Amino acid sequence: MIQNVFIIGATGKVGRELVSQIVEKDLDNKKHINPTRIIGLASSSNFLFSEKGLSKENCLDFSERKRNFEKYGSLDELLEMVKSIKRDEGDSFVLIDVTAVKNIIDFHLKIIRETDFGIVTANKNPLALSDYKTFQELIKEPSRYGYRCSVMAGAGVIDYIQDLRDVTDHLELTEGCFSGTIGFILSELENSVEFSEALKKAIGKGYTEPHPRDDLNGLDVAKKLLILARTSGYNVNMKDIRLLPLIPEKYFNYDKINEFLDSVKELDNIFLEKIIKAKESGNVLRYIARISFENNLPKLSISLREVPKNSPLGSLKGTLNKIHIVSGAGTYSVKAPGAGLKITAQNIRRDLLQQLKGRKLIEY
Amino acid sequence: MIQNVFIIGATGKVGRELVSQIVEKDLDNKKHINPTRIIGLASSSNFLFSEKGLSKENCLDFSERKRNFEKYGSLDELLEMVKSIKRDEGDSFVLIDVTAVKNIIDFHLKIIRETDFGIVTANKNPLALSDYKTFQELIKEPSRYGYRCSVMAGAGVIDYIQDLRDVTDHLELTEGCFSGTIGFILSELENSVEFSEALKKAIGKGYTEPHPRDDLNGLDVAKKLLILARTSGYNVNMKDIRLLPLIPEKYFNYDKINEFLDSVKELDNIFLEKIIKAKESGNVLRYIARISFENNLPKLSISLREVPKNSPLGSLKGTLNKIHIVSGAGTYSVKAPGAGLKITAQNIRRDLLQQLKGRKLIEY
Repeated sequence: MIQNVFIIGATGKVGRELVSQIVEKDLDNKKHINPTRIIGLASSSNFLFSEKGLSKENCLDFSERKRNFEKYGSLDELLEMVKSIKRDEGDSFVLIDVTAVKNIIDFHLKIIRETDFGIVTANKNPLALSDYKTFQELIKEPSRYGYRCSVMAGAGVIDYIQDLRDVTDHLELTEGCFSGTIGFILSELENSVEFSEALKKAIGKGYTEPHPRDDLNGLDVAKKLLILARTSGYNVNMKDIRLLPLIPEKYFNYDKINEFLDSVKELDNIFLEKIIKAKESGNVLRYIARISFENNLPKLSISLREVPKNSPLGSLKGTLNKIHIVSGAGTYSVKAPGAGLKITAQNIRRDLLQQLKGRKLIEY
Repeated sequence: MIQNVFIIGATGKVGRELVSQIVEKDLDNKKHINPTRIIGLASSSNFLFSEKGLSKENCLDFSERKRNFEKYGSLDELLEMVKSIKRDEGDSFVLIDVTAVKNIIDFHLKIIRETDFGIVTANKNPLALSDYKTFQELIKEPSRYGYRCSVMAGAGVIDYIQDLRDVTDHLELTEGCFSGTIGFILSELENSVEFSEALKKAIGKGYTEPHPRDDLNGLDVAKKLLILARTSGYNVNMKDIRLLPLIPEKYFNYDKINEFLDSVKELDNIFLEKIIKAKESGNVLRYIARISFENNLPKLSISLREVPKNSPLGSLKGTLNKIHIVSGAGTYSVKAPGAGLKITAQNIRRDLLQQLKGRKLIEY
């Protein structure tokens, strides 16, 4: 059985890494009984498609934008192309979304409603920005909708929480540090680096979004927390989260990155004071996302908190992420690298494995 | 679709907990589109079977040994019974092995070879005591052979390592503390409790095997380590493990538990000295299982080691288990409760979920 895939966002950072991993590690992988076959690639404007599968060279040329490729009108046009393929019995098709596009909810829904195709997504928006009913419709068949990369890609927490629901366990508390970028900045502050310098360092290492505001406003962490709460079966929305951004909102008005970076220098002393105050009590600062419960209702919050230096979250270093999930089964804790390109691409490929019907492990 | 299950070992500690969890949480669970139906239960001598499913009362009566039930001659006899059932299209059958029986390898093999049934096992023996070729045959279809409970039940490390193989990542190091019993004893030693007293406390809390020798000889840890290495694709056997038991082998000759407990009092001072020596360097003692690599060949070892008190394994407390898996994707660390009855039974039920074809999450 062949697993055909179509990758949208194939020229982005994750997309390029994913194409190169599939080309190098999956296409000729003798360990795979069910090979992955790339039949389509798309950027925001161009695409490349062949129902018989694309060659390595063509895949790499496309993802590296080495040539000009055909334009397309809409994603629906691509979908119609894939729908029209006569598939061999048992062959499957998975759409991979590694874009960060917001208005793609309807496209995901259309695939779930109108086809038997699967989706693997690293894009959190369809899960976090849709209403709860839509969220439920998207994820209802775990074998068709893989979204492990949306929250701590390598940690498997989505599977864990889906399972807890189905074995009738109840979530008591979920708490974690989900932003590799903010984790890195806070680690630097502990090493006496000034806030504005730590931020520049994070930008230099490629840890931040194109505009670092999009990390510091906490919205990305909020989307992850919301996806966890919804996966646990709670009808919650972004507005239900008590979100305190890492820095005051007034700074987010600076659209030009240089002006933004200049303005946040004002915060250097404020963070220095916070760090000193924390140190005096043996504490460190962590940006913590939390789902707790009051009268069986979930309370979602995200804020900068002081925690003991030797506590599980306090001992976290650099870009690492960590989560604790407390349920009737005790506390499950995972520490894993904050989503980087390699980890994200590898876990998209793990989600593809989960969608293989009759997956077999090769003897070797 | 109904998932029919037959539980062997149903009157044991895990078996009783499992039956009660299924009866309370799965049978009438409206969250389950695919209900679990217990059609058979067996102890080492008796069984109860009905192809239409057993009632709650009958299940509980059997697992609590409340009445006398029919005798059976061999497991093969039970297997023939199940084979003869006319199943509805889509219905599936899973055998659940919660025994600790050693000579059950052929029975597992027969199920894999002669039927399309699934197996979920908490019994490590078929995986650790078979030859490597047999191991590979047993696990080749992840959707038919669930063994997450064999190593750190709640931690999902088996899935993780299976996936690493299939995405062509390579294991660099695996290191962990896998014995809740030994973890508990070492934690007590740190609190100045004498070794023989700590052992008695562990027995009192029900943490040990019937004869505590079976925890202290490290064999259980060795089986887990072997299963991890084999899951990674390495042809290794028990004799390839450099295993240092927690206490010298001569004590294991005492078959009577009282004599054994008396004899190990000799070790109180030896452990005291070890603890003091470790403390002087800021260290603690941990019983660590490790897979490392030399020239791409795995080296398996298990021994008591000194590690810094604030290190990831040094900070572990009580019966908790922890594992670090280092691969090309970075370090993945999980901390989870050492297999207790509740956790084991819950994770057998998670393995059942993994074997559901067309599993659906209910909207709620």
